Amino acid sequence: MSQTHLLIADTPEALEPVLAAAAAAAQPFAALAPAARAAGLCLIAERLEQNADRLIPLAQQETGLAEARLTGELKRTAVQLRLFAEVVLDGGYLDARLDQADPRYALGVRPDLRRSLRPVGPVVNFSASNFPFAFSVAGGDSAAILAAGCPLIVKGHSGHGELSLATADVVATAARDAGFPTGAFAHITGQETGVAALRDPRVQAGSFTGSIAAGRLLADIAASRPQPIPFFGELGSVNPVVVTPAALAERGEEIVEGCVASVGGSAGQLCTKPGFVFIPAGHGLDEPIAAAATQIAPHRLLNPRIARGYEERLQRVLSASDVRTIVRGDSEPSVDGNALVTPTIAAIALADFTSADPQLHEEVFGPFSLVVEYGDLSEVPVTIEAAFQGNLTGTLHLGEAEYAGTAPGEQLERLRELTALLARTVGRVLFNGWPTGVAVTPAQQHGGPWPATTNDSSTSVGTAAIGRFLRPVAYQNAPEHLLPAELQTANPRGVRRSIDPAGSSLTWGRGHAS
Amino acid sequence: MSQTHLLIADTPEALEPVLAAAAAAAQPFAALAPAARAAGLCLIAERLEQNADRLIPLAQQETGLAEARLTGELKRTAVQLRLFAEVVLDGGYLDARLDQADPRYALGVRPDLRRSLRPVGPVVNFSASNFPFAFSVAGGDSAAILAAGCPLIVKGHSGHGELSLATADVVATAARDAGFPTGAFAHITGQETGVAALRDPRVQAGSFTGSIAAGRLLADIAASRPQPIPFFGELGSVNPVVVTPAALAERGEEIVEGCVASVGGSAGQLCTKPGFVFIPAGHGLDEPIAAAATQIAPHRLLNPRIARGYEERLQRVLSASDVRTIVRGDSEPSVDGNALVTPTIAAIALADFTSADPQLHEEVFGPFSLVVEYGDLSEVPVTIEAAFQGNLTGTLHLGEAEYAGTAPGEQLERLRELTALLARTVGRVLFNGWPTGVAVTPAQQHGGPWPATTNDSSTSVGTAAIGRFLRPVAYQNAPEHLLPAELQTANPRGVRRSIDPAGSSLTWGRGHAS
Repeated sequence: MSQTHLLIADTPEALEPVLAAAAAAAQPFAALAPAARAAGLCLIAERLEQNADRLIPLAQQETGLAEARLTGELKRTAVQLRLFAEVVLDGGYLDARLDQADPRYALGVRPDLRRSLRPVGPVVNFSASNFPFAFSVAGGDSAAILAAGCPLIVKGHSGHGELSLATADVVATAARDAGFPTGAFAHITGQETGVAALRDPRVQAGSFTGSIAAGRLLADIAASRPQPIPFFGELGSVNPVVVTPAALAERGEEIVEGCVASVGGSAGQLCTKPGFVFIPAGHGLDEPIAAAATQIAPHRLLNPRIARGYEERLQRVLSASDVRTIVRGDSEPSVDGNALVTPTIAAIALADFTSADPQLHEEVFGPFSLVVEYGDLSEVPVTIEAAFQGNLTGTLHLGEAEYAGTAPGEQLERLRELTALLARTVGRVLFNGWPTGVAVTPAQQHGGPWPATTNDSSTSVGTAAIGRFLRPVAYQNAPEHLLPAELQTANPRGVRRSIDPAGSSLTWGRGHAS
Repeated sequence: MSQTHLLIADTPEALEPVLAAAAAAAQPFAALAPAARAAGLCLIAERLEQNADRLIPLAQQETGLAEARLTGELKRTAVQLRLFAEVVLDGGYLDARLDQADPRYALGVRPDLRRSLRPVGPVVNFSASNFPFAFSVAGGDSAAILAAGCPLIVKGHSGHGELSLATADVVATAARDAGFPTGAFAHITGQETGVAALRDPRVQAGSFTGSIAAGRLLADIAASRPQPIPFFGELGSVNPVVVTPAALAERGEEIVEGCVASVGGSAGQLCTKPGFVFIPAGHGLDEPIAAAATQIAPHRLLNPRIARGYEERLQRVLSASDVRTIVRGDSEPSVDGNALVTPTIAAIALADFTSADPQLHEEVFGPFSLVVEYGDLSEVPVTIEAAFQGNLTGTLHLGEAEYAGTAPGEQLERLRELTALLARTVGRVLFNGWPTGVAVTPAQQHGGPWPATTNDSSTSVGTAAIGRFLRPVAYQNAPEHLLPAELQTANPRGVRRSIDPAGSSLTWGRGHAS
């Protein structure tokens, strides 16, 4: 593997050439033709796929994730690079706005104003442990950063160090072959190296996927720099699920199957794993739950640190008073520190849950979920609001009439209340499904109030993620030859634009119906 | 003036009812029909205009700003409330995105996903000293916050305390009459009160216009809360202007007139005042500059603190070696501490400017500007990059052939370089104009990299400002009756939406030209 084209740094001292190259690349990379940037993203995707036979075994070995999952994850990673290529070519993300000069504007003569979004400059992206492809070197954040036209400095995760470096080599080669300027991509390793990069004045934004503790540390660093910069961390989430009595009656066993599969998939090491499931008391589902959990094949946890953390948290939760174990899966680390685990599901009555030690309301990273047994659906919203902070997702399982809107009005009102509560506190509200398996699409929202993220203004999955690495610039009375293409009158790129015509303020208060 | 309907707090201890009311108002205010929210904004505008005879003299007395300026500012304030009413009715700001369910999606079966933006919750807005209407109680930030559907807690500025309270009374009455829920608007005073509000967990965002020191303090508080929240501060800016040799030759005296008027307007107490003007050495304009400055009528500085600061900074700059005073205006505070001032303009050679104490590169708040005399235009970009951080604006004055694009290629290349530099470091790039007098329009951008703002992802002037107080929420496979109106299939509000049809991924890589 030739690495002469790959910029790397494994200590803070080695960072200088990486940062200097990133800063030098900012302007030429921003100026690269959109078609060339898009082609580069597609070339990275192609090269990843071509190297799958080499990369997937490395990932398997380093993370213990199953081959099928990793194959799917690599495919997702390639697809999201191609999706961002489409975003770049389309240009709608630039939010181009044109105000025509207007002598009759409500506030007096209005100049010609044109505004679009441009790349912020070099960005450091901290890779995740649990997605060695999709949230790592060539993952979603990286795709969004490169698509935005920002030089990318990836901090590889130590949990899959060899894979990171191998992926970085593939990306760097493709970037070079696609004509990206030197400095548009670099790979760094080590926590101190990452922190030093985030502190450097040439870096203009950060992104991260990982724990609340690490994410908060980095967010604080970004905010306390002499020049504060935006930091987009995706942290912890417990993803509450609420099953109504009607849904339980109509689809109880199907819900159990789906739930246990969602809790157990990838050994529960997913940020959208349903951590708390609110089910009517007296559900009678202990047996099906145990049966479903027992059918899930043992799966390795990512690394010994996570294995240790899972076992400790699990023991504490299961030994709490009022917690009833429904099925106790494997969780003990073996001699090498790794653990082959199977799902554990426990239950608690809602009143006990409410009054429990707040630790019981926190995330358990691994294949565990706590069933919270409620008496009346009206008790659920207040419990969710009191027990949890922000979450990536919230899910409702409804009965047929509830979904169709033909249930009694009082019941529909409760569902509206629950939906409104979830919309206030999570990024994505799901119905009759499971939150794991996040679609990469234009309307996806993977975010949520703290501590789901450090910054809830955007998403880390889906095409809207590109907005995190852009800033607006307006041009006033600019000559055509000094305007970016998307703002030129002739619109040579054919991007979608909002045009406010001269005379628009004359119609204010007319012509609009609510 | 009846204040029974106006929620107020002048100490941290008095805050509780204000915060409790704001939190309680969040859901009903978010759920208020857009037409009702828009009507409320228009009613506030109307009532402000109806009370102009009472409010403008109060503002004059407290700020010393001229009547004509205050009349214009009140008009602007009313107009921007009406403009935001249009934004609310239009609904395009919701960025509604719909992914149709797609069994053939590139990543496997895709669910029905729909995403739009919703209000973040209660926001504290810190008023400015220098815009008692347009950036204060009923100003741009307030209009954007209410338009977004967020309860608004305004921290009034002590420099115009009576006006603030009188304005708050007008706003609160109009809000009540428009059917806004109690708690949708409150007025608080005192720095400690403002800080306590910003720290409260019920508050979800902050906005601010003022000094770098105060803005940084508040931004740090917002970032270091247990739940960090977004904080949008608009702070300091020196607004560099570059006059090319051709522009000087063709329009030298016209440029002097415009520049001095822009520097002297409102006694230079505008965040977009041109602080540094790069002109070719040997311009021979000292006399016209002095003549223009002398024609500007004396104008009071806002308050004794600003008057003291201006006099001190001015003396330090003028006494710096290599600084040549072109015209020395009045600046000394009188016995009451206030100062009636006229413009002061000085000059320095570019080489001396570059090597000067960095203090010389900082903002002087008041009617002062420093002319930087350059030998060759190619020296200017590197000087701007080295001397200044982020700015709200950057301006180029071009000659006719330069503007038309018919100047020699080498000269046009320099102009492209200068434009690119400004686009990297400012929020708005102007041509052949002056940055003061910020239009309130869809394409306006009033922001910029630190220290122009604490957060450069958005604007504090223009309709895009509403985006600061919104967060995205996606709905997956939701029944129609639980979706917000803008995401319902029938689109009852008729808002602009982006729809990604089923089968879209089949055309990736085709059908797009760059």
